[in-house]
Amino acid sequence: MFKTVMAHRAKLVEEHLLMELKKTPVIDEKLYNAMEYSSMSGGKRIRPILLMAAVDAVDTPNIHGENFLTVASAIEMIHTYSLIHDDLPAMDDSDYRRGKLTNHKVFGEATAILAGDALLTLAFEVLTRQKNVKFHVMLEVIKELAIAAGAEGMVGGQSIDLESENKSVDLATLKKMHMGKTGAIFRASIRAGALLAHANDKQLQNLTHYAENFGLAFQITDDILDAIGDEKTVGKPIHSDEKNHKSTYVTLTSLDNAKTLANQAVQNALDNIKDFGKNADFLREIVKYLLERKK
Amino acid sequence: MFKTVMAHRAKLVEEHLLMELKKTPVIDEKLYNAMEYSSMSGGKRIRPILLMAAVDAVDTPNIHGENFLTVASAIEMIHTYSLIHDDLPAMDDSDYRRGKLTNHKVFGEATAILAGDALLTLAFEVLTRQKNVKFHVMLEVIKELAIAAGAEGMVGGQSIDLESENKSVDLATLKKMHMGKTGAIFRASIRAGALLAHANDKQLQNLTHYAENFGLAFQITDDILDAIGDEKTVGKPIHSDEKNHKSTYVTLTSLDNAKTLANQAVQNALDNIKDFGKNADFLREIVKYLLERKK
Repeated sequence: MFKTVMAHRAKLVEEHLLMELKKTPVIDEKLYNAMEYSSMSGGKRIRPILLMAAVDAVDTPNIHGENFLTVASAIEMIHTYSLIHDDLPAMDDSDYRRGKLTNHKVFGEATAILAGDALLTLAFEVLTRQKNVKFHVMLEVIKELAIAAGAEGMVGGQSIDLESENKSVDLATLKKMHMGKTGAIFRASIRAGALLAHANDKQLQNLTHYAENFGLAFQITDDILDAIGDEKTVGKPIHSDEKNHKSTYVTLTSLDNAKTLANQAVQNALDNIKDFGKNADFLREIVKYLLERKK
Repeated sequence: MFKTVMAHRAKLVEEHLLMELKKTPVIDEKLYNAMEYSSMSGGKRIRPILLMAAVDAVDTPNIHGENFLTVASAIEMIHTYSLIHDDLPAMDDSDYRRGKLTNHKVFGEATAILAGDALLTLAFEVLTRQKNVKFHVMLEVIKELAIAAGAEGMVGGQSIDLESENKSVDLATLKKMHMGKTGAIFRASIRAGALLAHANDKQLQNLTHYAENFGLAFQITDDILDAIGDEKTVGKPIHSDEKNHKSTYVTLTSLDNAKTLANQAVQNALDNIKDFGKNADFLREIVKYLLERKK
């Protein structure tokens, strides 16, 4: 049941994202193709799914979350842009992503930079396309996402990550880096859902804590996958952290300890939303799923 | 008088931009330094000045335009990000900009990419910081700027530009490229000013036409400067178009014809705002100034 809903919603996001792309009058064909290539290269769509699940948790499940597919698509555009830029030769220099050639390997470095820039910018335009949201709520959502995506969040985290390459960092730096690089967008996706569903202060606070623990569990399990996952299933080279002498939850503590930390984060996330009813069941399932994910 | 106001407003924008940067809790110092370096490297601040001049044209000069310094700063951040990315090795591969080393020459390629990403994202956050604007007007401004900055405008134009390198393009392609690469942001800056000042439909339409002619005159005079300007004054290498076999208004027609086209565009821009009173004098001065600019 959980996996069916997950797949269904991923498909909804993907279709809507493509529709938003197609209705954008991009003035250069090569640029458009590069934008679509990475947008349609089969992500798990976790961030938009979290947004929808947060709407449901506050509101009625399986109806209202899907009203915000436009915001959901914008979030996925921000995520896609970040992957394109992260893979660039000057950054992680990755040839493959999700088992497919990375954007710059197909379209060249210049176009990949521009496709990322264009997707990031388009995300903010697409946010203004969302219907049936009060103006002040949409401005709050824009602010949340901009803060999470920029120098205070994702871009800042990536910058710390680059400086940490080939040197050992402590657990505090690792946490700060991940909180920026991946945690901030998870947090903003869930908070955006809560804001769109008119959550009260207490609900918003609980969902924010849930999101922070979700992000932590996601990152630790990501590190575990890089250490012991199956390369074919994961869709990108494993043991890359070890090869790049990167500090991770596994290298800084141990595989067993990383597993314990992941379990704790999931338990904390479940505690954070204990006051929510059945409507939050999907949020409960998805955080538990992190512990068994294979990619 | 005109040059005094221009310098005064450039200074106001610069100070406000720095303040907005400083109040942003960037989580990585190197990233922040790279963002500040290019933001404070002495641009003419034409786009934010156009925004303020458009506000004045609709409203009362020298008072109201300066109420929107936050939006003005956001526009300059978008412009700055575009310069950082344009200068990258994979793009124009420029070592100098405004007589100073380009961002990637100082901070490295990865940080330059991230500094650009961060400034673009921060622009949208900063827009939500602007006080005393109705929510629906601010959403319109965000939409205008996102459309102008992205694949439909600036990024799209840059993409066409890259594909046009080392080959001759026709005047129609040249116009489309410039309309995207530089014209769209001029247009959006002026339209944003008009929207913030609650222009009526007729005023908005006239200012939009003015902006389009301003953009055209700006681009033609830019091409002329590259052909006959003084390298030291221009602040970047001249004859670069010729060296890169780039089609320009000068190479596609002639220097004399380019000068005629620039004069025509300026005259058209002046006609477009003939119904505006004294409040639009600054807009009149600034477009005439393009014909005598030395950098």
